[in-house]
Amino acid sequence: MNHQTDTRTRLITEARNLFAKNGFSGVGVREITRAAHANLGAVTYHFGSKRALYDAVFVSMGDDIATRLETAAAAPGSAVSRLKAIVHTLFSFFREAPEAPLLILHEVAATGAPPPALVPLIRRNLQAVERVLREGRAHNEVREVDPMMVAFSMISQAVWFALVGRFLPAIGVVPTDDGSFAARVEAHVVEAIRRSVHREADTP
Amino acid sequence: MNHQTDTRTRLITEARNLFAKNGFSGVGVREITRAAHANLGAVTYHFGSKRALYDAVFVSMGDDIATRLETAAAAPGSAVSRLKAIVHTLFSFFREAPEAPLLILHEVAATGAPPPALVPLIRRNLQAVERVLREGRAHNEVREVDPMMVAFSMISQAVWFALVGRFLPAIGVVPTDDGSFAARVEAHVVEAIRRSVHREADTP
Repeated sequence: MNHQTDTRTRLITEARNLFAKNGFSGVGVREITRAAHANLGAVTYHFGSKRALYDAVFVSMGDDIATRLETAAAAPGSAVSRLKAIVHTLFSFFREAPEAPLLILHEVAATGAPPPALVPLIRRNLQAVERVLREGRAHNEVREVDPMMVAFSMISQAVWFALVGRFLPAIGVVPTDDGSFAARVEAHVVEAIRRSVHREADTP
Repeated sequence: MNHQTDTRTRLITEARNLFAKNGFSGVGVREITRAAHANLGAVTYHFGSKRALYDAVFVSMGDDIATRLETAAAAPGSAVSRLKAIVHTLFSFFREAPEAPLLILHEVAATGAPPPALVPLIRRNLQAVERVLREGRAHNEVREVDPMMVAFSMISQAVWFALVGRFLPAIGVVPTDDGSFAARVEAHVVEAIRRSVHREADTP
């Protein structure tokens, strides 16, 4: 990685963390360049504007998660095993990047709608789930279900767990934390998806 | 409602909207009292401090939703029909009060954890779901499931729908919006919960 790529990447990383904490209007270019150890002109040089950097943060994050989900969807195995891999990918992604949904939510709080840069990401994620369900139906493994609904169930539970659920042991709502709480929630979501889509759940 | 109660209620309502938009530190007492058409000393008079008003916002919101869920849980009918009523209550609540989850998320963004004032609310909601599942098991209607997981599934999907899902038609991810999208998501969540808990889903 050459120096310029390095600076660009650092700007995106630091901007992502800062925007997640304080929203678009709550973060200045000076703050971002300082955090990225770049000079004050670096945002203009690499992106053109603070707004363009902000969009680049969503594109980079969206591309990362969508690529991982497409890999999980394209793996060999049954439809249920690939849906399980998609759920695991979502839980892993949001565990590594709990700031990701906060970025979206600042935009919702400020503008009343999710950022337009999110649309291609949502489409690609939906297509990954559609692919698995279509192939699962072709093999008579899954029943007729709306891929949008299955995708929504997976994403909503993974995101809310990253945002609030993972704190339940810390605030005493889950009695003891032996570290297994996250795994239990993920297993529960997988099992609920399996029961939602599996043909055998209808006609064993 | 006398004048003092009225002022107190107005302060909570306006504070709730403002804190949801800008977080605890992003809102001043002057801004709240102006929005509530109260004098500058009203926050101190009614609550003691801005922090105490902030806690009162969570207590009032939490009490509202918990009371509705307890009513749904105590209704006559099968366990599945009461779980359906709980899901409906959650979707209705967050449709009426989409600012509610934003309040929580500002606190997560600012402090790294959900607000302590939320704990009694989470407990009461969990107890409502536990009650329905316990009674459903006593009538051999539902299988052995973890109430925490069922409650988590319901809440996470209702909250994420209120925050982001309801915008999917507007941003073009859902092809047409004939107004039925919210109803479809709610029906999907109900059906997924039914398949998760119902004994017949195992042994028809």
